[in-house]
Amino acid sequence: MPKANKSAKAAGKAAIAKPSEDQPVLRAIKGGKAAPKPAKPTPLKATSAAADDVPVIGLNLEPAKLSPAMAAYFKKCEDKLGFVPNVLIAYAFDMGKLETFVAMYNDLMLGESGLSKLEREMIAVVVSSQNRCYYCLTAHGAAVRQYSGNPLLGEHLVMNYRVARLNKRHRAMLDFAAKLTASPWSVEESDRERLRRVGFTDRDTWDISAVAGFFNMSNRVASATDMRPNPIYHRQAR
Amino acid sequence: MPKANKSAKAAGKAAIAKPSEDQPVLRAIKGGKAAPKPAKPTPLKATSAAADDVPVIGLNLEPAKLSPAMAAYFKKCEDKLGFVPNVLIAYAFDMGKLETFVAMYNDLMLGESGLSKLEREMIAVVVSSQNRCYYCLTAHGAAVRQYSGNPLLGEHLVMNYRVARLNKRHRAMLDFAAKLTASPWSVEESDRERLRRVGFTDRDTWDISAVAGFFNMSNRVASATDMRPNPIYHRQAR
Amino acid sequence: MPKANKSAKAAGKAAIAKPSEDQPVLRAIKGGKAAPKPAKPTPLKATSAAADDVPVIGLNLEPAKLSPAMAAYFKKCEDKLGFVPNVLIAYAFDMGKLETFVAMYNDLMLGESGLSKLEREMIAVVVSSQNRCYYCLTAHGAAVRQYSGNPLLGEHLVMNYRVARLNKRHRAMLDFAAKLTASPWSVEESDRERLRRVGFTDRDTWDISAVAGFFNMSNRVASATDMRPNPIYHRQAR
Amino acid sequence: MPKANKSAKAAGKAAIAKPSEDQPVLRAIKGGKAAPKPAKPTPLKATSAAADDVPVIGLNLEPAKLSPAMAAYFKKCEDKLGFVPNVLIAYAFDMGKLETFVAMYNDLMLGESGLSKLEREMIAVVVSSQNRCYYCLTAHGAAVRQYSGNPLLGEHLVMNYRVARLNKRHRAMLDFAAKLTASPWSVEESDRERLRRVGFTDRDTWDISAVAGFFNMSNRVASATDMRPNPIYHRQAR
Amino acid sequence: MPKANKSAKAAGKAAIAKPSEDQPVLRAIKGGKAAPKPAKPTPLKATSAAADDVPVIGLNLEPAKLSPAMAAYFKKCEDKLGFVPNVLIAYAFDMGKLETFVAMYNDLMLGESGLSKLEREMIAVVVSSQNRCYYCLTAHGAAVRQYSGNPLLGEHLVMNYRVARLNKRHRAMLDFAAKLTASPWSVEESDRERLRRVGFTDRDTWDISAVAGFFNMSNRVASATDMRPNPIYHRQAR
Amino acid sequence: MPKANKSAKAAGKAAIAKPSEDQPVLRAIKGGKAAPKPAKPTPLKATSAAADDVPVIGLNLEPAKLSPAMAAYFKKCEDKLGFVPNVLIAYAFDMGKLETFVAMYNDLMLGESGLSKLEREMIAVVVSSQNRCYYCLTAHGAAVRQYSGNPLLGEHLVMNYRVARLNKRHRAMLDFAAKLTASPWSVEESDRERLRRVGFTDRDTWDISAVAGFFNMSNRVASATDMRPNPIYHRQAR
Repeated sequence: MPKANKSAKAAGKAAIAKPSEDQPVLRAIKGGKAAPKPAKPTPLKATSAAADDVPVIGLNLEPAKLSPAMAAYFKKCEDKLGFVPNVLIAYAFDMGKLETFVAMYNDLMLGESGLSKLEREMIAVVVSSQNRCYYCLTAHGAAVRQYSGNPLLGEHLVMNYRVARLNKRHRAMLDFAAKLTASPWSVEESDRERLRRVGFTDRDTWDISAVAGFFNMSNRVASATDMRPNPIYHRQAR
Repeated sequence: MPKANKSAKAAGKAAIAKPSEDQPVLRAIKGGKAAPKPAKPTPLKATSAAADDVPVIGLNLEPAKLSPAMAAYFKKCEDKLGFVPNVLIAYAFDMGKLETFVAMYNDLMLGESGLSKLEREMIAVVVSSQNRCYYCLTAHGAAVRQYSGNPLLGEHLVMNYRVARLNKRHRAMLDFAAKLTASPWSVEESDRERLRRVGFTDRDTWDISAVAGFFNMSNRVASATDMRPNPIYHRQAR
Repeated sequence: MPKANKSAKAAGKAAIAKPSEDQPVLRAIKGGKAAPKPAKPTPLKATSAAADDVPVIGLNLEPAKLSPAMAAYFKKCEDKLGFVPNVLIAYAFDMGKLETFVAMYNDLMLGESGLSKLEREMIAVVVSSQNRCYYCLTAHGAAVRQYSGNPLLGEHLVMNYRVARLNKRHRAMLDFAAKLTASPWSVEESDRERLRRVGFTDRDTWDISAVAGFFNMSNRVASATDMRPNPIYHRQAR
Repeated sequence: MPKANKSAKAAGKAAIAKPSEDQPVLRAIKGGKAAPKPAKPTPLKATSAAADDVPVIGLNLEPAKLSPAMAAYFKKCEDKLGFVPNVLIAYAFDMGKLETFVAMYNDLMLGESGLSKLEREMIAVVVSSQNRCYYCLTAHGAAVRQYSGNPLLGEHLVMNYRVARLNKRHRAMLDFAAKLTASPWSVEESDRERLRRVGFTDRDTWDISAVAGFFNMSNRVASATDMRPNPIYHRQAR
Repeated sequence: MPKANKSAKAAGKAAIAKPSEDQPVLRAIKGGKAAPKPAKPTPLKATSAAADDVPVIGLNLEPAKLSPAMAAYFKKCEDKLGFVPNVLIAYAFDMGKLETFVAMYNDLMLGESGLSKLEREMIAVVVSSQNRCYYCLTAHGAAVRQYSGNPLLGEHLVMNYRVARLNKRHRAMLDFAAKLTASPWSVEESDRERLRRVGFTDRDTWDISAVAGFFNMSNRVASATDMRPNPIYHRQAR
Repeated sequence: MPKANKSAKAAGKAAIAKPSEDQPVLRAIKGGKAAPKPAKPTPLKATSAAADDVPVIGLNLEPAKLSPAMAAYFKKCEDKLGFVPNVLIAYAFDMGKLETFVAMYNDLMLGESGLSKLEREMIAVVVSSQNRCYYCLTAHGAAVRQYSGNPLLGEHLVMNYRVARLNKRHRAMLDFAAKLTASPWSVEESDRERLRRVGFTDRDTWDISAVAGFFNMSNRVASATDMRPNPIYHRQAR
């Protein structure tokens, strides 16, 4: 697969273009002036070795000028990750929306919590698997592989979390998230009690619920807009 | 039903207690020191005339001190609405979470958009009906009754939006939101095209998706935590 | 909302017209000669304050002459309720059908039983919520509010009966009705045993089943014919 | 299978016992005094050749004295069919319930209609197949075999009506009944229009809906009470 | 029904034509040269007494020359059963496919196993009922009637296996097969444990799984190709 | 992740042990004498870097002596693939079952067909995604990556085939396979016609159906027995 890998790497590179003054990241990806309408992407021949060379989202939205805070944040992404996650580029047509998304994301996934960052990523992947969300399975599947140092765990959670060998805490946590995703109306006190029995505090239960809720939102925004993950995720931490 | 109404009105009052320095709103509702654990609420006798006199949420979370911004916001709620919506009280155990929630909510539901505020509330109710979310159906059902000046429209959307006599724009908008809620994985370009055909711009499609996504999150946080709406909503704009 | 309320009240009035010799109730509502075909109702603008001013059902059926028994029954409805429920007007194209419907309804909902009338209405609402039946949720939601003297109970059962604080008897009764509605093939002896354990006799179990069955019928007749409830229900016992 | 047939025939015989003064039909089948509680039936060994020698229903209900009208009706069943259908015996613990059931059944299934009796039986079977109702599939599957003179048609409708070679009228009729059974909330004007396009009048649509509704009721009463069909149905019109 | 029976019997006869040198079985049924395309079968009038006189499958596949092994096998079918099952005729367009199908079928259904042949047929019917497969319900429903000497058991399993009076072993076995059919992803160690608790060895569990899996394959091949069972099955072992 | 990779590689190696006289492949993996019962595997700590070091299946089955044909086949696997796929090891407790499985697999996936090998693997992955089968998604996801030279295509089909940019032929093929998997009873002539319209012959339709059917079988055998894929697949053709 060397050819594929190479072209995929190139695509990965493109996605990391600097948010310089003329914001090539945004223009290149959503088309900007030159490609005013995302038009229906021409279908890849299934047998060709091709990167995910489609627009970041299937909507034609003009990129906005990055606010100083967001320009700094994009810079930080590039420095730490080597690229700006496409979800940020997707939201970057409106600084208000980008900033509230980033604030909520960072609070939930990186803020203080009784849940480890890995646990929060595990919830993200199980919710996204239930909702079959390509973007989130790709980006957060990579995060699980990375945080856990256990590539198989990422695969398990993407495909069917029930095959993972989980301890009781993690199984209860993921069962709660999966039920909350599939039939939120059926979650009751007995479900919260099960979390308490394996040691979660009520604050932990809030966090499990909030993370599961957040990805039920993000999965739908991603699916509704045909959002595409940075190809680089696919090769991370295998 | 006068007795019921009276007791319900009393409960409504209670829920509007001022966020004074010692924050009785939060303490009264979540229990604070005096009621350290929400304990399993004793079941109402179904035949008794009783208000929704249960804790705001079914988790035992200590109220935090309101930040100046949030204290001002709660004050504004009371001045404009006559009460602080319970969802805000539920989030008020952590100022960071409360503030990001408020920021995203206000951007989505009250910010600039090609969708009217009523349209955004209509999406909120249809998503919440699909997810059978008691909190959101109550609060946003009231908003639809109020914004539309059409109490029946609120009932229709709560019970089954297909019985509402909607124009093509609204029917397409709500079909999109309902499908995105029930099977996000199946939303495709043809669904976006249907929105374009009834006149929605791509930016409108983003907003429909983001509002539908947001309530798929909120419905789940509410169900997971047994969040209870302010009883006053039930009687608004009938 | 005063305008809406007024016009809704007017519509409510109209629906209570006397079944006099020329039966204006039937003619006015189903169209009679003057409005020979219900035609597709012109869509309400969602934002307009409008009553549910659409035909009682979406089928064009000529009203029949009320039999003496049914004329007396309609009279009794007006005297006791202040109006004739639309479901009766819908069936009144054929006296045989109207009479068997009334006979079965009255036996089940008002006849002797180990279940209180409120309990039977609770079952009606939970079944109708599962089936998202606008007519029955409206009419029987009002009945639950009225019989229970607890407006919130009506809201809970319409939206998601799992949020109601029910005693064990009522929870078991409604779980049975909900399961029987959603997957009748899966109801087995263990389900009947659960009813016995909370104190229901076998005769009670028959009645629970018969009421749940009846609304599974009525919900479908209502949805199949686009049956519309009398608007007055919406404001009862709030 | 001669042994099986013989014992099955014997059981069939038993079920046709005369409603004489001491009503052996009811006593024998529901247990009466002698067998006061249906008790959990001892499981048949699956490999034994055995009739459906279980109580008519899984509830312990005392038979009532047949009213003259119902005694005459039972007599008529025996004369015409050679047996009293078990559903009637199940309802015979209460003359009011039996009479309203019989009245509605006869109006719907045997009364005047634009639908032939076979068509009404076809709807009954398709609804019952969706709901996997053993009683109704058995009794009405036999009726379809008999009325149609086409034993295969009965099998098709029991197993999967989509495999039957149906004309457009029948396919539209059964699609409507199946959709109304599976997701009544989703039936809309376009569904009624499809019936009109293949020639059904609005009155026919009512009848299709009412028959489909009726079996959604009966299926649930039968499943909820573990109602057992007369074994003789199984061998009719093969 | 004598006319129906007669014509059905004739159709049964036709299906048992000898696989002589010119293979009339295959030619007659799939059309061979004379009927080059199965064409959409003209719909039966539902009320006419007619056999299942449609092609064996809804695809136009040229029959292949039977290999000596398969010619011998077809001969054996006729000698033992009186006819060649249509599924074999359906596969006979390709000797490789026919032979691997026969080999797997015979190993699973007739080979050595801790499960009796009846038990394997019971699994086949329950899986096919879940999948509503006309071919397999017909052919294997007959087998259950035959092997068990209990015609009712066949009906129960076709319609709803939960109504059969099964011993614990059989109920656990069929619950496993039904769950594996409906939601294979949810089968876990606890499900295997339940089988062990009622006495199944791990080898038995393999066989239950393999038979359930096989009919999940066959049901889909049959539905995808509109495969039709030999009419003779319908009358066997009633 | 180097540690993880190393240990995973080691596990991969182990899985390729030669089927020598004492059959270490089988003994090592299923436990043989030394590990007579697979016992409930001790749960991995989710955060530990660990290979899928669990038994090949969750059933305790004694390995059989490989027949000469199967010994040769295993040898060929090692020579060509570098390892023996675990599914073969799982079936190797019984030479008859192994041989019929291999024969059917090879005929369907590698034999002559109007479908390319890649197309058959694409069907395998889409069916397995619907059924959330860990084994088959892993093994056949790798095959799609490999055959297509397009790693992204493998990810798309594993996660949600609707996000892949497919030509009409492939989309119709996969829609057919997905529908046949989810609701086989609903596949009708119109579905076959859609395949014809994009150029598939009736023989192609058979092959699509047979491959989709086969993986509906294999997915269930794998899930029922907790079958585990060779870890090496995870890293192939990324």
